[in-house]
Parts: sequence; structure tokens; C-alpha cells
Amino acid sequence: MTVHRGGAAGRRGASRSGSGRAVGPRIVSLGGGRGLSASLSALRRLTGELTAVVTVADDGGSSGRLRDELGVLPPGDLRKALAALCGDDDWGRTWSDVIQHRFQSNGDLHGHAVGNLLIVALWEKLGDPVRALEYVGRLLGAQGRVLPMSAVPLHIEADVRGLDPADPERVERVFGQAEVAVTPGTIVDFRLLPQDPPAVPEALDAVRAADWVVLGPGSWFTSVLPHLMVPQLRTALVETPARTILTLNLVAQPGETEGFSPQRHLEVFREYCGELEIDFVLADEDAVPDVDELRHAAKRLGAELVLDRVAAPDGTPRHDPELLAAAYDRIFRTHGRIAPWR
Amino acid sequence: MTVHRGGAAGRRGASRSGSGRAVGPRIVSLGGGRGLSASLSALRRLTGELTAVVTVADDGGSSGRLRDELGVLPPGDLRKALAALCGDDDWGRTWSDVIQHRFQSNGDLHGHAVGNLLIVALWEKLGDPVRALEYVGRLLGAQGRVLPMSAVPLHIEADVRGLDPADPERVERVFGQAEVAVTPGTIVDFRLLPQDPPAVPEALDAVRAADWVVLGPGSWFTSVLPHLMVPQLRTALVETPARTILTLNLVAQPGETEGFSPQRHLEVFREYCGELEIDFVLADEDAVPDVDELRHAAKRLGAELVLDRVAAPDGTPRHDPELLAAAYDRIFRTHGRIAPWR
Repeated sequence: MTVHRGGAAGRRGASRSGSGRAVGPRIVSLGGGRGLSASLSALRRLTGELTAVVTVADDGGSSGRLRDELGVLPPGDLRKALAALCGDDDWGRTWSDVIQHRFQSNGDLHGHAVGNLLIVALWEKLGDPVRALEYVGRLLGAQGRVLPMSAVPLHIEADVRGLDPADPERVERVFGQAEVAVTPGTIVDFRLLPQDPPAVPEALDAVRAADWVVLGPGSWFTSVLPHLMVPQLRTALVETPARTILTLNLVAQPGETEGFSPQRHLEVFREYCGELEIDFVLADEDAVPDVDELRHAAKRLGAELVLDRVAAPDGTPRHDPELLAAAYDRIFRTHGRIAPWR
Repeated sequence: MTVHRGGAAGRRGASRSGSGRAVGPRIVSLGGGRGLSASLSALRRLTGELTAVVTVADDGGSSGRLRDELGVLPPGDLRKALAALCGDDDWGRTWSDVIQHRFQSNGDLHGHAVGNLLIVALWEKLGDPVRALEYVGRLLGAQGRVLPMSAVPLHIEADVRGLDPADPERVERVFGQAEVAVTPGTIVDFRLLPQDPPAVPEALDAVRAADWVVLGPGSWFTSVLPHLMVPQLRTALVETPARTILTLNLVAQPGETEGFSPQRHLEVFREYCGELEIDFVLADEDAVPDVDELRHAAKRLGAELVLDRVAAPDGTPRHDPELLAAAYDRIFRTHGRIAPWR
């Protein structure tokens, strides 16, 4: 969609389509897995200009088998993001269900998600990861764009303390996203391999042209922080005039961030974010044991702490798309230079 | 598409859409594999009311592995028919290429056609083979409908003479379409298992409502004749007021019909077609060594022999879609009760 923007509206003004219909702010959501799906399910309600930039370091399950067998980017997180953006009609929902469908058998296909196979086939056939994802997006009637964080498959490697009960201070290497996500002990450092992966130009352009950038919620080391380790992407995040929101998880993640407080999540983020300043840290008001501590931790990132109700009312530790959308909308309306967008 | 037909036009008159646009005669093409693809590639040029009724007895390759692993209909011949009907634009052609794409690896996915996996996933998700194929058809912008010949997976079993050099008159059983298609010796009888499979109601309706039914070209025992062994489908073929064309192959098929003359093909057809009368037998004028013999064999089916140029000009033994379309069009125009359709 070509978007014509009035000069007077400024960089953070309302985007409008050629027909004059307001399409909302330009938002880029970075992440992976279920956290990114929650973010996209919320943000799609607020804009027609949504881009997901997705981790490509998964090495477990169907994605791991595909990258091993065919040497491709792991498609799983991209697939989940596309499903979260599917068209809001019978066609879109059916195809979303189909790409999320996993074969169940005693044979070779067991556990493969259909959308993973489809995305990989389009990659092989078209030879262009971004164009292939556009095809799947069009198939789903996706309300937004899905891009990989890197043009090459990545691995995550972590240094973990406390794996050896006989020597609890010893630090050992844990290799691979699937292992890192569930590791016992405490992650004290982590990195991507290769260490300087090329970003996808379309993702850099989207970050630079955004009105808002949203990081999190999601697995902290394996879905939220990896974007900061892609040098070109980090530079774009630092340089963009977009305002930036970092959304905290509702609970610590068994394994990866076991026992981490909300402020500890922010401290870890600060170790890896370099010059990137965050404008807002969004947390659920019932998920913060110590508000003052968290406010201080946010301030060290340059951010204002926003407490809101974003958890699912049923008590499961997941973000409710409608509540999360309402919380983002309040931030956008209060803090966008020109508000409301719609 | 809802088609309104004027009463005066009669059963074989021109079909017209609600908007008054002529959409051509209602044609049902029965077959499987490459022969059916050739037929569909030709017939799609002549009508907007095209239905393919496709064999589901394949037990080799990707289809065979899928029916073994997941207990589904073999999707391969259905996939090929859908690809042959893909929309005539970049979108349709790209998706056609994608569903025809086969994974190449040293692993579990090697040889699987992507469209097979997609069709099976839709079957598992929607639980309705016909509706699932409609979804793939819509994805491709298919110019016609693709239906399975039977609602259950079938096997082909043949009695073959001459497999044992020491006892050349001995008749042995060969099981499975993949084996039958390449068997040495001479097929003296064959059957479907189960022997009384249920047809798909939509296929019966299409045959009964057709203006023209086209059988062949294709592998004689494994793609053309199986439709006659599904009792409900044979009854519909006998009862339909549609005119029927049987299109002969350009050459005998190594294995399945090795050494069979064109008239021998018709004699075999007559053994299995019961009360079904054929109106026209279409053959390439350069592929008939003995025209009089073939004309006699056609007559025994109740058919007029039509000789035309339908072989690809490059000398490969395949039907040229444009030439085949022109040949069908001449038959339709000369012998349809109301012509031309367009």
C-alpha cells in the first residue's frame, strides 16, 4: 500500500492511505515465538502499517529439522507471526489454522508444521526470503508484513553458571536456542553465531521509517535480545526517530530467566542494548512486586515506566490482545506527537 | 459460480454466467497424472465450466508415502490437476510452481511434493476432501474444479501373464498402481480394491450435468480405466446425456500397455466399459498405423473416429495443449446441438 503523508503531520503523524483512510501509525514489532504473536495480535488492532521483525535462531523442533535438512532459515517464528496477522475472515482464519497445523504420525512428517514446509518451499522456489514471506502473507490476507531479523540462519550460544552442582561458580557454554531456552543455571552472557550477521534491508528500512518500535514481550534471551546483537539492526534502532516501547513479561521463564525479577530483566536488557534508549517500559500492574525498583531500572534505560492491565483475565500468564492493544493505544495517544491517529 | 441456463438452449447449449458472459460448455475430464494434465490444459481454453475427476489409487512416491503414513487419499494426481488449472497470472503460476515443487535432500522430506503436503494438511484440518480441494483451487485461482474419483483411497491389482520366462502362459497378481504401471508381461485383467468404492457425490453431479465428458489420454489401466470400475461413477457415465470423447494416447506405454496398438487400447476399454457408449474416439492422425482397424474398433464402442493433429510438434510423445484444444473445439462445434458456445 502506498501511503501519502502530509508534510505538516510530521514523522509521527497519522499515516493515511492514498484514499484518505487513516491506517494508523507505522509500527515495527520485534521478537519471536508466542510473545511476538501476542504483540502482533494487539498491534494489528491499532494500525494498518505493521511490520514484524522476527528472530531466526531457532534450532529445535520442526524448524531445527528443516534448517538441518535443507540449510534454510528456521521458518517457525516467521510462521507464527504470519498466523497472528491472518485476515479476519473465514479464508484467512482457515489458512492460518492450516499453516499452524502439525502432522501427527509415527513417520517422517511427525511434528512438522505445515506452514514451515510451505515457507521453505517458497524460499527454495523464489530464492528470496522476503518475497516468499510476502506470498504467504498475501495468501493469509495478513494485516501486516513479516520479515526475518537476519538474512542468514543464526545460532544462540550462552555462558551459563551453576550447571555443575559440585562447582556452582563454574561457567559453561550452552549451544543452541532450544537448549538455552530451557537451561538450568543462570545465563551470564550470550551471543549470536555468526557474530555479525547481515540484517535484511527491508527490516532496517521499516525500523528507520517507524513511528513506534515495540520490543517484547517474549523469551528474553532467545526472542527479545537477539535483535540487539545484529549490528545493522541495532544501529537502525538507535538511529530511528521512532519512539520505543519495551514490554515486560508477566512472569519469569522457567530455565531461561528463572528467578529473574522484572527489574533484573531490564538490567540484562541494558547490558546488551548499547546506546539504544527506550522511551516506555510497559508492565502489567499486578506483575510488579516492587514498583520503585522497576521505575529506577526503567529510568536507567531512559524510559518512563507505564503500568497497565495487560494480563489475560483468566489468570494464565499471557498477554490479553485487547488489553494489550488498549494499553499501547493509551501510550500512543498520550505520547505521540500528533494524536489520535484514528 | 451460479450458471443460469435458458430453457431453450437445451442440455447441451451454451452455459452463461449470471452476467450473461458465455462460459462455454460444461465439461468433465476424467483421468490422472500427465494425461489428465494435458487434457485440462487443453479444455481450460474452451470453457469456464470444467471439472476434473481424478484417480486416487496411486501408491508410489510422495503420494504412496503419505497414504501409508497418514491414512489419507493419495494427493498427487489431484495436485497435478490443480496445477494444470492454475490461474493465468503471476500469482497462479507461482503457486502452481510451489505446489509442484519437490524437496531435494538427504533427509525425511526428500521427494515430497509441497502441494501433496498442503492438500493433506487441508484434509486433516477441514475433514472434507472436496472442500479442501476447493481451498487449494481458490489459492491457485484455478480455472475449474478438481474432485477425487472416490471418497476412499484405492488400490489397483492386475493379473499379468508372462512374468515367468519358464512358464510364459502363467498369470500372476501384481499389486499396486506403481507396480502395475511398469510391469513387464501383459495385463489380462485388473480390479480396484475395495471393489465397490463410494464415489464422491459432487463428481456424480458433475458427470450428470455435463455437456461433454472426456476420457483419456493417460496410462490406460491406471488412469483411464479405473473410473469405470467405480460403480456409481460408471452408472453416472452411462446415464448422463453428455456426449463422450475418448482420447487415445500417442504411443503405447512401456510396461502397462507395451506393444498395444491403438485398436487394442479400445478393445481393452470395451472389456471394462459395460453399457457405456462413446460418441467420439480422438486420435492423432500420425499415431494410427491402421485407420480402418481403429475405425472398426471405435464403431464397436458406438463411436465415430476423429483423426486430428494433436501431438506436440517437437516430436515428443505428448499432446500439445493448443492443438488438442483446437481438436476438441472442432468436435464441440460440429457435434454439439448448439454451436458455437463462445
